Amino acid sequence: MKIVDSIEEMQTITNTYCNQTIGFVPTMGFLHEGHLSLAKRARAENDIVVMSIFVNPLQFGENEDFDDYPRDAEMDMRLAKEVGVDYLFFPTKEEMYPSKLSMEMKMVEGVNILCGASRPGHFDGVITVVSKLFHIVQPSIAYFGLKDAQQAAVIHALVKDLNFPVQIKALATIREVDGLAKSSRNKYLSQKEREAASSLVKALTLGQQLLRNKSANFHEIRDKVQVFLQETSEGIVDYVELLEYPTLQAASASSEQLIIAVAVKYSKARLIDNYILDNSFNRLDELSF
Amino acid sequence: MKIVDSIEEMQTITNTYCNQTIGFVPTMGFLHEGHLSLAKRARAENDIVVMSIFVNPLQFGENEDFDDYPRDAEMDMRLAKEVGVDYLFFPTKEEMYPSKLSMEMKMVEGVNILCGASRPGHFDGVITVVSKLFHIVQPSIAYFGLKDAQQAAVIHALVKDLNFPVQIKALATIREVDGLAKSSRNKYLSQKEREAASSLVKALTLGQQLLRNKSANFHEIRDKVQVFLQETSEGIVDYVELLEYPTLQAASASSEQLIIAVAVKYSKARLIDNYILDNSFNRLDELSF
Repeated sequence: MKIVDSIEEMQTITNTYCNQTIGFVPTMGFLHEGHLSLAKRARAENDIVVMSIFVNPLQFGENEDFDDYPRDAEMDMRLAKEVGVDYLFFPTKEEMYPSKLSMEMKMVEGVNILCGASRPGHFDGVITVVSKLFHIVQPSIAYFGLKDAQQAAVIHALVKDLNFPVQIKALATIREVDGLAKSSRNKYLSQKEREAASSLVKALTLGQQLLRNKSANFHEIRDKVQVFLQETSEGIVDYVELLEYPTLQAASASSEQLIIAVAVKYSKARLIDNYILDNSFNRLDELSF
Repeated sequence: MKIVDSIEEMQTITNTYCNQTIGFVPTMGFLHEGHLSLAKRARAENDIVVMSIFVNPLQFGENEDFDDYPRDAEMDMRLAKEVGVDYLFFPTKEEMYPSKLSMEMKMVEGVNILCGASRPGHFDGVITVVSKLFHIVQPSIAYFGLKDAQQAAVIHALVKDLNFPVQIKALATIREVDGLAKSSRNKYLSQKEREAASSLVKALTLGQQLLRNKSANFHEIRDKVQVFLQETSEGIVDYVELLEYPTLQAASASSEQLIIAVAVKYSKARLIDNYILDNSFNRLDELSF
């Protein structure tokens, strides 16, 4: 595995593989099984695998955890090598943002809900860095986790709006034994919080069951899931939403796909989870677009 | 020459040429010698030449000439074929903008001066369509005319900020016998206006001479050029600017490159012209970045 910290070098390398497929896994590092499952899939489906590690300052708000975001470069390099990454693109902040940008990219649809509601500008930072990374790595397929389902929806809109020549695969959330979605932020939970945190995935399963039973309307189902989370999560419920996916518009009987999404604030971390369902309310483990 | 109106087909075609260089000439059609000189240069320097013709609604203001912008598809196809274009990408508005965009691109530097000052949002539309076209055509080198020097500066900033894997060449303005810069909008001049319109290039030459003589400071030179244009152009002077290039910041003694730029409003057309000068005040005929 070669570690590359220069944009120019990375572009020179990817240009040499133009007849081969490049699978790309963009990450912010502190790799866990979620990231590694994306890299393994990229390894199975492509000639070349590129992973990037870059904690992107542009997608953190002023009062968010940019400085405290967990980092472990040595562990990341070891894990990336183990799963067969060919090139680890690991640039500095100065390499990615050498000076103030002359232009801005801004999401104007699907961002004032879910995590976007409490993180103004977050997805603007995401689409900016993803555009840069796509131009640097020039992947055939880019892999994202469905745990960040709103991010996957935003990437979908970006690729569609700007005609990026990249296929996007959003893969299944990887979970702990008790169902808790793997996340770099889980390490900030207290023992009591960690024990209660499987409440998020249980709330999603409850929502799915209620949808299947058709005993309540969307609004009532959302309320029931919210009450369940309030009573069991040991955290403060940030949101419970039932929306059409990937448009993130209001769900209706004619919606082809739905998302049930939850977010809970704990003392030192905010956790999110979701299910994507088809119109028979079966879970979709992955999406490709 | 093959005419392509589908984004998907164009992307499929350009993917097959990944080991060859693709020269790209984006235009709004109504081709004149300026466009054709770009295409000829692309032909000389690349394996494959793609030209696009698309009058981009996003870069026209509400009161601008989108509907009246001159169009002649048959002439354009004939001329493109004559100069050796391999693929003419000629999409409809619906193909390029099938629905409202979910995101916006916005220039925040170098746009509140020159043509940007009187065309709010114009360069936002330019960088959006150029981003789309670059993703569709995936060129090795893209060719622009230096007549739209602010546009070339904006494309320079876009490519640098977002790390597009594209080389940009901005080539010399092509002129009529009397020096008037070729433009699709020249046809809207009355006979009297057309005769006076060489005043623009004469004003630029005057500015260059005054800079060389060092007999006046930047501010005084700008004023003298303005007076000359007012007295000779038979139009209304929109602006005369002397700036650093391509930053479009205030010119100073330490500026490596300068631009003298002028714009004059005639009854049915607004004409622009400029000289790019090095720090010895010699004209630069082309720029590459």
